[in-house]
Amino acid sequence: MAHFKLTLAYDGTAFVGWQRQAEGVPIQGLVEDALAILEGKPVTVAGAGRTDAGVHALAQVASVSLDRSIDAPTLVRALNAHLPDAVRVLDVEETSAVFHARFNATAKTYRYRIWNTEVLSPFERPYVWHIPAPALDIAAMTEAAPILEGRHDFAAFQAAGTITRTTERVIFSSRLIADTDPNGCAALLVYEVRGEGFLRHMVRSIAGTLVEIGKRRYAASRMREVLESRSRALAGQTAPAAGLFLVRVEYQTPDL
Amino acid sequence: MAHFKLTLAYDGTAFVGWQRQAEGVPIQGLVEDALAILEGKPVTVAGAGRTDAGVHALAQVASVSLDRSIDAPTLVRALNAHLPDAVRVLDVEETSAVFHARFNATAKTYRYRIWNTEVLSPFERPYVWHIPAPALDIAAMTEAAPILEGRHDFAAFQAAGTITRTTERVIFSSRLIADTDPNGCAALLVYEVRGEGFLRHMVRSIAGTLVEIGKRRYAASRMREVLESRSRALAGQTAPAAGLFLVRVEYQTPDL
Repeated sequence: MAHFKLTLAYDGTAFVGWQRQAEGVPIQGLVEDALAILEGKPVTVAGAGRTDAGVHALAQVASVSLDRSIDAPTLVRALNAHLPDAVRVLDVEETSAVFHARFNATAKTYRYRIWNTEVLSPFERPYVWHIPAPALDIAAMTEAAPILEGRHDFAAFQAAGTITRTTERVIFSSRLIADTDPNGCAALLVYEVRGEGFLRHMVRSIAGTLVEIGKRRYAASRMREVLESRSRALAGQTAPAAGLFLVRVEYQTPDL
Repeated sequence: MAHFKLTLAYDGTAFVGWQRQAEGVPIQGLVEDALAILEGKPVTVAGAGRTDAGVHALAQVASVSLDRSIDAPTLVRALNAHLPDAVRVLDVEETSAVFHARFNATAKTYRYRIWNTEVLSPFERPYVWHIPAPALDIAAMTEAAPILEGRHDFAAFQAAGTITRTTERVIFSSRLIADTDPNGCAALLVYEVRGEGFLRHMVRSIAGTLVEIGKRRYAASRMREVLESRSRALAGQTAPAAGLFLVRVEYQTPDL
């Protein structure tokens, strides 16, 4: 038996997300189906993170064990031959038997993209949240984002109705990146967050809160008030899935 | 009567090109339909260049005359409200009665994008020509591209069966842009060409010839041999439409 770490990129637009749902096409299902063709029997993969419907990945990670003996470059080619163009296996590495994409992950990085001009570029449509004019207050958003760094109870930023063992999470960095012009405006605003783990809808709820601050409905300090309230009702709306990208999953080398 | 210059961006993937065809949805038709709603009667627009099916535009230009009195910012908003997301009016300027998007254009710039890694990013799929490994000879392609600069008979790079008054055209610049790594490889190669005018399929035939040189089937000097032959049979294949972008159309200010 051989064990593999798969690194995948996907355009999530047409899918119901990573995990199997009652309806629609899950990316996990596509990968498992492609592996089942090679293995000759059903295969289960473990993904590092569940991306929701419409969310994209630059480098999702999944682990899988196969009976069939196959080398890593051949597995890349064989999987891509059976996957739709919107899902690509970028890399395969052989791992130890104990490697698990979700349990061994030490950090994940997500990016949320916001487009802030009156007219949205047709090429950015599926990959941003379009906030037309007026220009967002980038200084306030930049000030608000790092308030979330550290170990906190993120209950305020969790999808309503979710049950989890704990809503405490560690965020290593939480930053807004915007390439501003002399007027302090930017067409594209990118919120990037790296943490040990995330609650369901957490990044999108943070993005929604950042945009409320950007629209000057609240001061930057609102971010701390929402966090400390632990109340979903105080956070901004869950930002649209299209703007969210899973960018990177990190592991300690010995785990592989 | 008021006269306008429209600047448009579009993702050409789902369309049959700019001009009306026997079947399918032309971008010109979408713009004319949106204008007809505002004008209350049929309207004809003149595009600067005919982009073929699947070809994209960052800034196509069209001219139109309207009976209805309307200011430019209102026209931007009204047109975008009636156009699909894949077609956006970026800008409208009022012009003189003599302005014609095609006849007054002094230069057009096209970009052709080539993706040269084994696995194609799912986000680049509709916007590149995917040439998997082996790595293209970027040095040879870089040497070949400028051979086309100047006034030449480009008959070798014209779509078969096209009848035009003359196949002579002036190319101001013809360059390959690639961000290479220490091994001289690049994931993305961009061919950019600026000229007075272009023949049908000219940029795509040039791109096809550049790729043949990149694949080391011919030396860089092949570009001159193809050009001087005036024979379509010697040029490379017509590169796929997905990789082509109309980037810019230039006018002399007095023409507006």
